Amino acid sequence: MSKQEKTAIEPTREQNYAEWYQQVIKNADLAENSDVRGCMVIKPWGYAIWENIQRALDTMFRETGHRNAYFPLFIPKSYFEKEAEHVEGFAKECAVVTHSRLEDDGNGGLMVAGELTEPLIVRPTSETIIGASFAKWVNSYRDLPLLINQWANIVRWEMRTRLFLRTAEFLWQEGHTVHETAEDAMEETRKMLEVYARFAAEYLALPVIMGEKTEGEKFPGAVNTYCIEAMMQDKKALQAGTSHFLGQNFAKSSGIKFQGRNGEFEFAWTTSWGVSTRLIGALIMAHSDDNGLALPPKIAPSHIAIIPIYRDENEKSSVLAYCDRIQQLFAKEYFEDIKIYCELDDRDLTGSERNWYWIKKGIPIRLEIGPRDIESDAVMMARRDKEPRDKQSVGVNNLRDYVLQSLKDIQDTYYQRALSFREANTVQVDDNRKFYKFFTAKNAETPEIHGGFAESHWCGDVACEEKIKEDLKVTIRCIPFDAVEVEGRCICCGKPSRRRVIFAKSY
Amino acid sequence: MSKQEKTAIEPTREQNYAEWYQQVIKNADLAENSDVRGCMVIKPWGYAIWENIQRALDTMFRETGHRNAYFPLFIPKSYFEKEAEHVEGFAKECAVVTHSRLEDDGNGGLMVAGELTEPLIVRPTSETIIGASFAKWVNSYRDLPLLINQWANIVRWEMRTRLFLRTAEFLWQEGHTVHETAEDAMEETRKMLEVYARFAAEYLALPVIMGEKTEGEKFPGAVNTYCIEAMMQDKKALQAGTSHFLGQNFAKSSGIKFQGRNGEFEFAWTTSWGVSTRLIGALIMAHSDDNGLALPPKIAPSHIAIIPIYRDENEKSSVLAYCDRIQQLFAKEYFEDIKIYCELDDRDLTGSERNWYWIKKGIPIRLEIGPRDIESDAVMMARRDKEPRDKQSVGVNNLRDYVLQSLKDIQDTYYQRALSFREANTVQVDDNRKFYKFFTAKNAETPEIHGGFAESHWCGDVACEEKIKEDLKVTIRCIPFDAVEVEGRCICCGKPSRRRVIFAKSY
Repeated sequence: MSKQEKTAIEPTREQNYAEWYQQVIKNADLAENSDVRGCMVIKPWGYAIWENIQRALDTMFRETGHRNAYFPLFIPKSYFEKEAEHVEGFAKECAVVTHSRLEDDGNGGLMVAGELTEPLIVRPTSETIIGASFAKWVNSYRDLPLLINQWANIVRWEMRTRLFLRTAEFLWQEGHTVHETAEDAMEETRKMLEVYARFAAEYLALPVIMGEKTEGEKFPGAVNTYCIEAMMQDKKALQAGTSHFLGQNFAKSSGIKFQGRNGEFEFAWTTSWGVSTRLIGALIMAHSDDNGLALPPKIAPSHIAIIPIYRDENEKSSVLAYCDRIQQLFAKEYFEDIKIYCELDDRDLTGSERNWYWIKKGIPIRLEIGPRDIESDAVMMARRDKEPRDKQSVGVNNLRDYVLQSLKDIQDTYYQRALSFREANTVQVDDNRKFYKFFTAKNAETPEIHGGFAESHWCGDVACEEKIKEDLKVTIRCIPFDAVEVEGRCICCGKPSRRRVIFAKSY
Repeated sequence: MSKQEKTAIEPTREQNYAEWYQQVIKNADLAENSDVRGCMVIKPWGYAIWENIQRALDTMFRETGHRNAYFPLFIPKSYFEKEAEHVEGFAKECAVVTHSRLEDDGNGGLMVAGELTEPLIVRPTSETIIGASFAKWVNSYRDLPLLINQWANIVRWEMRTRLFLRTAEFLWQEGHTVHETAEDAMEETRKMLEVYARFAAEYLALPVIMGEKTEGEKFPGAVNTYCIEAMMQDKKALQAGTSHFLGQNFAKSSGIKFQGRNGEFEFAWTTSWGVSTRLIGALIMAHSDDNGLALPPKIAPSHIAIIPIYRDENEKSSVLAYCDRIQQLFAKEYFEDIKIYCELDDRDLTGSERNWYWIKKGIPIRLEIGPRDIESDAVMMARRDKEPRDKQSVGVNNLRDYVLQSLKDIQDTYYQRALSFREANTVQVDDNRKFYKFFTAKNAETPEIHGGFAESHWCGDVACEEKIKEDLKVTIRCIPFDAVEVEGRCICCGKPSRRRVIFAKSY
């Protein structure tokens, strides 16, 4: 490889996808592992992406009538035990607080002391602790629907962790709602899934498939779990959000009862739904390339890097003055509902070094400005969705409009690319042998990337699901909402089936 | 008392201040205790106040060059032990995670299992865990200053808790910065205290005194602690925010070193500063009255309650249509940088019930609208800073401007009232007997409310500070920045002193 052809990220996606992912995060300075097992540090550029995710979702939650609140970090063990399936699902990996102080151990160190009468679980999800409040808040049908959201940190003691995708502590939002009827709760469950799908498409430029989880994959304690699934560039699926219809399960375990219109007391119907910092992992794996992070403008912490180029102090002052004028062009500008931010990078590094710095950070637009550009009243503009050396001169007269249009184009390009990629790697497979080949054939040149989404028939039997999982590490990602009714035969056992489901390897 | 004179909150401030505080919170539906010892549930109206605090402060932090990031919830015991004073200050009340799962106990219950090799402390503050990251991030003087802020939950196992003021878990922000020189770090420490003081004055309508803590009251591990202190309506002080100059203490314990301009490696200088959900407690106690919560408009979750009044279905449709028009007047309106929110309260309750509901929630402006108002193209407007029955007819032509001006007036009124109250209850005392009397004299009619701030001389001796604390439960709140140099004698021992400090009872 010549130096020109070298990519900014090593290894490339084709060489080693998992390591490429870590390197994109490192080079964009998004996050890092801490010394606390499985807990990550989210660095400013990564955290700003999370704040943008929060801002956009929060507006959508508010528009659909939800209000934010905050509930305790700790769940008493006795609460946790109330819902049998739920505790079964979370007991194996949870952080347990047992003591309330440290004391001198007599050897210059500290030992734990003040044992609690009841251990407390650091919330792995908050159905049981929020349910305890809801039981007090809900008395009559007039109190319903109760539509609450919480932004919080969560702990699940995962054994194998990976930045953003699976960490012991992560940040998320969890919606918790209470309804008068099963229909109302189901409508809410579906509505919030659609909010997630719309958010993923419009902000993250991430096309997702909406569908229902099978019995084996649903949330512990839920009646139905719905999800959005996205395809990453290694053709694996990533579950990007879930919405659960909880029936009366948690209402019964928490005692959420209300006096209905007929005067009788009955158990309420609840839902819960959440997305997490995992979305940042999805964002990275969906759009980034071998030169580093690529950020859809609507979620980028900053949109334009201005890179002044000069040789001496004399040039410096005129170039910086000109850059300041360019920056002012965007000072109060919005791209749709997103405020535009500029970075003026005047560090003592070469133009190339600063360019690559911002490429790796995924900034959508770079503007290089040197003395010759000033003479022609223009700047050299480059877009993150094009080749790094693909630059064009844009007159300053026209710059504001051109940049705004380019931000829109970049947003659209990322969505279309991700959609085309998914479509190109989704196949209908009806033959068992072909199915197995689809998920096992190795491409010698890209051993990391093979398979994709298989739309195949499934009889509904958990045994078939289990067998495929065991043989191929492939699971049913969802039963898509838009699956058409069509006769067929189960890809595993050959028994009749009436619709296709999505099979894939997954994160 | 006649029914008319009855207040909405019982008891009144004079009757029982502590209980009045709880009742204001309950009646405004701000927060409640949970079943988890010392942990509160912050309900939507209370949480929205916190979100407004966050939004305003976050903008100020960004403008002063800080970036948000997120660090682990858990601190390994070994980190915690590194700074001796620090651990001494926090070890007595911390939540300790010792296990990583729950297992069947054979009796249908669960027992803790998976003991960790090293216990983890749930962060009571993050100097040590953030210091571990900073040690990796800082290599050269070119990396400085490093200006980071974190919004997070915090746990301190307090024995006596009180909603917002002192809870085992609370929400806060903690700024952590690293600097090249002691001067730079000191400048940052002071600058952020000024940001807090400006925020308190401009948004919370809370006048505060900026000053330095004495040795005995400073943050464990700090070289200097600066604070803002506010007076509550029971004349006690409340520490509303702190900013710490940490010297090289935490740089040494965490190993934050950098290569200086001379090529030598040296320890950096750090600061930390924070405010918490305690500010909501300050807000309540500074402005609320015997009719409930009073919210400065710049921090209120919502600004205008529209209360339609009608007798029948016929009136209903025209009144609601009119209310809708009024609401539209404010749909895209801002009060300074604050978006204005309206609540249309069309619940099946009497006008009086709905009025009192919003008075108790502290909404700044109420607009009652009935058929007679519509005839005269006017609404009945009431302000939360005036008597509940003080209403005036305002023509719709003029309404937008009138409401905007009123919001500004209410904000100013609350600030001025709090300032006048503090000034009226601050005295210079130079006589020991008068000093003791000031803090012990009971007013038979208002046993809850006595004392205030005493500006008195102090020799600087910790023994005097301790004696006064023991005798009166009065502490030195701060040595004010604006204290003038003046000769005097210590209020306790009579030795020479060169300036007055603020003594008060406190939260």
